[in-house]
Amino acid sequence: MADSGWPGFAKSLKGVILDLCGVLYDSGEGDGVAIPGSIEAVKKLKESDLQLRFCTNETQATREKFVAKLRRLGFDISASEVFPPAPAAMAVLKDRGLRPHLLVHDGLLPEFDGVDKNNPNCVIIGDAAENFSYRNLNEAFRVLIGLEKPVLFSLGQGRYYKETDGLKLDVGVYMKALEYACDLKAEVIGKPSPTFFQSVLNDLGLQPHEVLMIGDDLLNDVGGAQHCGMKGVQVRTGKYRPSDERHPTVMADGTVDNLAQAVDMILNQRGH
Amino acid sequence: MADSGWPGFAKSLKGVILDLCGVLYDSGEGDGVAIPGSIEAVKKLKESDLQLRFCTNETQATREKFVAKLRRLGFDISASEVFPPAPAAMAVLKDRGLRPHLLVHDGLLPEFDGVDKNNPNCVIIGDAAENFSYRNLNEAFRVLIGLEKPVLFSLGQGRYYKETDGLKLDVGVYMKALEYACDLKAEVIGKPSPTFFQSVLNDLGLQPHEVLMIGDDLLNDVGGAQHCGMKGVQVRTGKYRPSDERHPTVMADGTVDNLAQAVDMILNQRGH
Repeated sequence: MADSGWPGFAKSLKGVILDLCGVLYDSGEGDGVAIPGSIEAVKKLKESDLQLRFCTNETQATREKFVAKLRRLGFDISASEVFPPAPAAMAVLKDRGLRPHLLVHDGLLPEFDGVDKNNPNCVIIGDAAENFSYRNLNEAFRVLIGLEKPVLFSLGQGRYYKETDGLKLDVGVYMKALEYACDLKAEVIGKPSPTFFQSVLNDLGLQPHEVLMIGDDLLNDVGGAQHCGMKGVQVRTGKYRPSDERHPTVMADGTVDNLAQAVDMILNQRGH
Repeated sequence: MADSGWPGFAKSLKGVILDLCGVLYDSGEGDGVAIPGSIEAVKKLKESDLQLRFCTNETQATREKFVAKLRRLGFDISASEVFPPAPAAMAVLKDRGLRPHLLVHDGLLPEFDGVDKNNPNCVIIGDAAENFSYRNLNEAFRVLIGLEKPVLFSLGQGRYYKETDGLKLDVGVYMKALEYACDLKAEVIGKPSPTFFQSVLNDLGLQPHEVLMIGDDLLNDVGGAQHCGMKGVQVRTGKYRPSDERHPTVMADGTVDNLAQAVDMILNQRGH
């Protein structure tokens, strides 16, 4: 009999996708802090026969600077393994000939250096944090309401995330705000968009059922991956809340205390 | 035959309720500016046999200061004729023994002087404008997410309003933001809440079908009033947009260029 439950299904996996914030580290002042055991867990996965990618909705820094931070925290990660929303957004802009008005974190701006931002015909919002002032949100609103066909891109749709000093509102909250203000539906670039997950699967060269997503966000990591045909396991770190385990519509394929425990269970099943 | 259409139904009216911002005046720097003809129109209504009240979602100042501003603009209005959300919210707080965390405009704070705000067990948001900083919204979010039964009151649910220098985001946008962040449904105090309209009808001592609401907001003024059984006429001033006249679900009983035109049509019908 096939072990379709957790951790039995780990035997048939060919690849693992990890979320970053809340799984590998908690963000906060400076670089934030690595979650205990996660540096070693990433190392073990890299030494295994499983393929590994990192899929994040991080939009406070360029991919380059973000990966540099992870390396300073002690993780052996390179930029080509990391999939954030901004490069995917740039591809969409070029493909559709769009000129964005940006409401993003200052640290993300260099990702959009190569695109025309004059006379904008769409708005892109990311996790702008303190840049989500009334003035800035109102400016983005006025751009949208002035367009004949308003187009809003949201880099992720998270509700909140955890920093070392507490929970912080995420981009999805401001996406909902602008959706209501302008009576429109945003296009999400990032998790849980199936297009976004598929780009990672394409890079892995694997089928969804061969891949496991591990994240701390029940809806965007676990639910998003499951929606694409992958397995989804939630860690009890980061933004995890006990009520996630009684969610009315999304049920993780497994729930573990942290990444270290998940990796040990996976590798044990596979006989490492 | 009864003239059930506009302006025929004006013959059977006993009372009129007016919205303020966008109908009597446009807000902006200082006191804002009166909309041409509106001072005279209010005077004509007061001299007629119709009862008159003012129903507003204004939450940037206390009722006293707000009415003082209207009087400086030239309107003959007294505080007892004006129904804003804050006094209604105070009544709810007292009735249910709630202690609010306030995210409102500085000018509104004195309305809540008499209530205990320690160890809050609910959040009240109003049109806080510049006070809707990321830090303040995050603080309100943390109060809500920390409550076992989070209660959010929104003083109105408007999308935006017009000031002399352009459109401004209204409280409803931030209500939607917090609803999404905390996965809850806010309780609206103000238009279009039926409870709120009913309190004005009670004060008038009239039945809904005897009363006309005139406003610039299709959903909150016109739709809200119609939902209570009143007639609703929209003015093409303030936040009015041409697309309002093709709205899929709400159709005004009449649409007029401004309050002056509405009042002239009403009084003509009534043989004044």
